[in-house]
Amino acid sequence: MLFAPKEEIDYRIKGFKSLLEKASLDGAFIHYKIDFYYLSGTMQDAFLFVPLDGDPILFVKRELQIARRDSPLEHIVPYKTMEEVKPYLGKIKRVGFQLDVVPYNQVLKFKEAVGDLDLVDVSPLIKSLRRYKSPFEIKLMERAATISKRVYEAIPHLLKEGMREIELGGLLEGLAKSLGHEGLLRVRSLNYEAYTWHILSGRTGTIVSQSDSPMGGLGLSPAFPVGASMKKMKKGEPILVDFGICYHGYQIDQTRMFAMGHMPEEFVKGYDVCRDIHYRVLDRAVEGAKCSELFEYAKQLAHDAGFGDYYLGYAHHKVRFLAHGIGIELSELPFIAPRHDYPLEEGMVFAIEPKMVFPKKGATGIENTVVMENKGYRVLTDTDEKIIIV
Amino acid sequence: MLFAPKEEIDYRIKGFKSLLEKASLDGAFIHYKIDFYYLSGTMQDAFLFVPLDGDPILFVKRELQIARRDSPLEHIVPYKTMEEVKPYLGKIKRVGFQLDVVPYNQVLKFKEAVGDLDLVDVSPLIKSLRRYKSPFEIKLMERAATISKRVYEAIPHLLKEGMREIELGGLLEGLAKSLGHEGLLRVRSLNYEAYTWHILSGRTGTIVSQSDSPMGGLGLSPAFPVGASMKKMKKGEPILVDFGICYHGYQIDQTRMFAMGHMPEEFVKGYDVCRDIHYRVLDRAVEGAKCSELFEYAKQLAHDAGFGDYYLGYAHHKVRFLAHGIGIELSELPFIAPRHDYPLEEGMVFAIEPKMVFPKKGATGIENTVVMENKGYRVLTDTDEKIIIV
Repeated sequence: MLFAPKEEIDYRIKGFKSLLEKASLDGAFIHYKIDFYYLSGTMQDAFLFVPLDGDPILFVKRELQIARRDSPLEHIVPYKTMEEVKPYLGKIKRVGFQLDVVPYNQVLKFKEAVGDLDLVDVSPLIKSLRRYKSPFEIKLMERAATISKRVYEAIPHLLKEGMREIELGGLLEGLAKSLGHEGLLRVRSLNYEAYTWHILSGRTGTIVSQSDSPMGGLGLSPAFPVGASMKKMKKGEPILVDFGICYHGYQIDQTRMFAMGHMPEEFVKGYDVCRDIHYRVLDRAVEGAKCSELFEYAKQLAHDAGFGDYYLGYAHHKVRFLAHGIGIELSELPFIAPRHDYPLEEGMVFAIEPKMVFPKKGATGIENTVVMENKGYRVLTDTDEKIIIV
Repeated sequence: MLFAPKEEIDYRIKGFKSLLEKASLDGAFIHYKIDFYYLSGTMQDAFLFVPLDGDPILFVKRELQIARRDSPLEHIVPYKTMEEVKPYLGKIKRVGFQLDVVPYNQVLKFKEAVGDLDLVDVSPLIKSLRRYKSPFEIKLMERAATISKRVYEAIPHLLKEGMREIELGGLLEGLAKSLGHEGLLRVRSLNYEAYTWHILSGRTGTIVSQSDSPMGGLGLSPAFPVGASMKKMKKGEPILVDFGICYHGYQIDQTRMFAMGHMPEEFVKGYDVCRDIHYRVLDRAVEGAKCSELFEYAKQLAHDAGFGDYYLGYAHHKVRFLAHGIGIELSELPFIAPRHDYPLEEGMVFAIEPKMVFPKKGATGIENTVVMENKGYRVLTDTDEKIIIV
């Protein structure tokens, strides 16, 4: 097990405090575990208080010993009620709170317990901070990518005619877990759930569902209407495997194409166009283009190649992003999407996924997790990019 | 794929309306998908409006066609903004809203959009309604139990000396998925995540972590500090397998004990005491005892058997429940726990899990998902209850 080093956490806290200061906040309470993991190194049942002046304090309900093992923070104290917390708070008035994710009742209860505080949504600051990954974070994502590579390389040995999509998904999930994959992917949402086993064959690649994806899949039931299904995979079908891996909380996302026997020509062509878009967009990103421009550029490339109708989904089901930032959340800043008028900078990590849907037939495309570094980019998910025919 | 029949949804809506009426509410908005799945039959990106007078309306962002396939509701309409919703609302003033789970900002945004409404937390009413399972729901839970049984019966064939806990977890997960298990378990919480692969061997059975369980496990990292770990399983260790299965959103929970070579005597004795407690509590439940009394009764039985120190966890890590209701959430009403002063009634389904932790050594215990019916009870998770020695 790897623990976040002290310098790493110190650096993140320092960055966060500078954002608090710019926002004229006296401090912040971090209740969402994804974010206090980032700022403390632990995901125990706890919350973090970061005063603008003074050291952060992690208040732990359970388990204190594990929180102290995980986190290099100096002040880690047990608590049961907010009464025990109040003496630590000092003079604060205008403080950050995670109003975008913490439930309404919980915010009210907190307000009542701590008294007269102005709570301001602090999540935009944390999201903004988390855009840039440190070498430590990139190392964890590299390890996730290594697991992913081994999973993808196993597919040709596992894929068999008549196998159900979910059967392959389960086998890959089992293999990934034995290599350190944590099973759950994480998104910042009340209702949207992420999952690992997104395997779509032939027509299931054309099914759109509740998720913001050009291809939702059939899933297993009305209660889980996305991803791999009980459909049996056949020869000559395009099989899209979009499999996320999570290592120490850090996720990577990847898509490759497979077929048994042969891949129909339009899916091969579509794939080549997707791959071409993928690399051309990255080249232009290196030149400093804004994300919104990159989104339009990619759309133009798809159109020029004659695939505009299918690119990023069909008809009114087109999605409005080409790439999503990724880290301890599956979908975070930056986004290659309209209105994102900033360039991709050093240390940013994102999953770029040009994909196409051919109605009633299936889906094709590629996805890689990429880091901007050394005035260029590096593909973390460095599995071979050839279409694999079994 | 199974879809909720019209009579089923009609019956639930009728029950919900009668609770709304008792609470003097003009209607309710259901935004949390677990609950609108219950009341509509779909988990698409949507929310449900149930007026006290009139038919419920499901407002769907995406995917309308799938929502109409899933749900027998008559009024399923597309929407993009709340402006399109307002004309449907009629005269309402005091309405239910899921203030326990919907984030603060989202509630404020909703209030702003719909204007002058008094929002009252309606989740307690839905939770109360969901306590009683219908024959349709029990049928889905039976199917989940059947998957679970096949998974448990595979363990003796998969378990090998030196195998990592997570390796076994992954294999079982893969098998479960191929049989229809949906992979994710669901809990009503911002920070608490449920997961399937809770496999603890020897000392990992004594590790307590952030979850409200007498035995959290080691997990894989500070970001996933619960459940199966990279620890290799050895001969002569107690191996506790607590594996949840989800079918069409309905979950069941089960625990059985395994060992390679032999099981140390105190774990066998502890297991026998747990099993005895399990059945004695159920017998007394049938007689109509209140849940809080059952909790105390079980504690007394453990004490009388000389296992009071280890029962439900060690020292200050004891958990405060013996059973949790289960259904579309992993933890819901009823609870066999202090202050739950109601009896277990016909149609209630719960997971009863007397367990013991022997410090520095390991854990033992049993868990079954049980339904109260025909003035008695029935164990849904009917896998053999013998300790399995491989």
